[in-house]
Amino acid sequence: MKLQVALDTLSLEAALQLLEKIEPFVDIVEVGTPFIIEEGLKPVREIKKRYPNMTVLADVKIIDGASIEAKSAFEAGADIVTVVGLANEQTIKDTIDCARMYQKEVLVDFIAANVSSLAKRLEPLGADYFCVHTAVDVQGQEAGPLAELITLKKSVSIKTAVAGGVRLDSIEEIAKQHPDILIVGSAITNADDPQMVASRMKDIISGCSS
Amino acid sequence: MKLQVALDTLSLEAALQLLEKIEPFVDIVEVGTPFIIEEGLKPVREIKKRYPNMTVLADVKIIDGASIEAKSAFEAGADIVTVVGLANEQTIKDTIDCARMYQKEVLVDFIAANVSSLAKRLEPLGADYFCVHTAVDVQGQEAGPLAELITLKKSVSIKTAVAGGVRLDSIEEIAKQHPDILIVGSAITNADDPQMVASRMKDIISGCSS
Repeated sequence: MKLQVALDTLSLEAALQLLEKIEPFVDIVEVGTPFIIEEGLKPVREIKKRYPNMTVLADVKIIDGASIEAKSAFEAGADIVTVVGLANEQTIKDTIDCARMYQKEVLVDFIAANVSSLAKRLEPLGADYFCVHTAVDVQGQEAGPLAELITLKKSVSIKTAVAGGVRLDSIEEIAKQHPDILIVGSAITNADDPQMVASRMKDIISGCSS
Repeated sequence: MKLQVALDTLSLEAALQLLEKIEPFVDIVEVGTPFIIEEGLKPVREIKKRYPNMTVLADVKIIDGASIEAKSAFEAGADIVTVVGLANEQTIKDTIDCARMYQKEVLVDFIAANVSSLAKRLEPLGADYFCVHTAVDVQGQEAGPLAELITLKKSVSIKTAVAGGVRLDSIEEIAKQHPDILIVGSAITNADDPQMVASRMKDIISGCSS
């Protein structure tokens, strides 16, 4: 199980300062969608330059123009790009084809989707990860991603990721389901002591792995 | 009827050079999704600075984090932002709420969606435009957006936009359906003579308006 930190609303400078503190506890650094909208792929380039061995995910949430957008992200140094599960199948296929050319990976984001039926339909396309994702905009209205993760793992045998509401008080229960990636955003980035939170989360994940 | 040009895969410099030629014939300038992924919102800021009276659409295709992402785009100078029709309803509501605060507009993009049922469901939310959109990734496999535009106009009474496969040889037939916005990308931006194509398209639209 890997810990992914999502950098969303930070400036590049603040993101790099935060990474210096939490980098030892993090397996994957995500440059989040709002960050990409604000800054483009520059944060991907800068983070990859400073941490060449770190896995960097560009949360571009491709929904069309897959070959152009995936190429941009991989050329900038991304190791994983995201594509929206609700996109046309051709878009998901094109994203995967592009990733294969660069020997990189694709995470399909199931945001706003019916996980079970869509996961079964998309499994044959050959993506690397399926990610259940409780949207920020509906957190509080809907249950967290745990039930969807359980459904996903029953539906397909592909590697899984989980995002949306993974916090210090919920991560152990989620980690017990053994997703391949646990994605944490504000619970780390907005914490008073991000290093302590990242370190404790890493410990909890390690405890559940054994 | 308005003519919107979508700037997708250009550098900022090339985009500004193109705009100098076609600006008299264009009502709305779109900073396209691949352009935003590459450059962030800088092209929105630069185009708005150079053409303060031009309507600028930021094709951010919001699917979560609506209040943050819409705010970023409006603060950068966008007059219209896009949200994905397949997003959670709360995301569409939050995008519209943010637009109201800035006295700006929202275009809901029906990419990859079943237009008729979704349009009826989303109409009460109060968005400014609904856009039928044949994805680049499925052009050639699927019919263009004309049939979907006709369906959309029968389904709801909201203002409409149409994108995906609007070319010099198809624009008249589409304009006869009187969408409020016709969105043209590569048919202008990749043309040998973009000024001539934009000018002829503007003439055809004007002819259909009378």
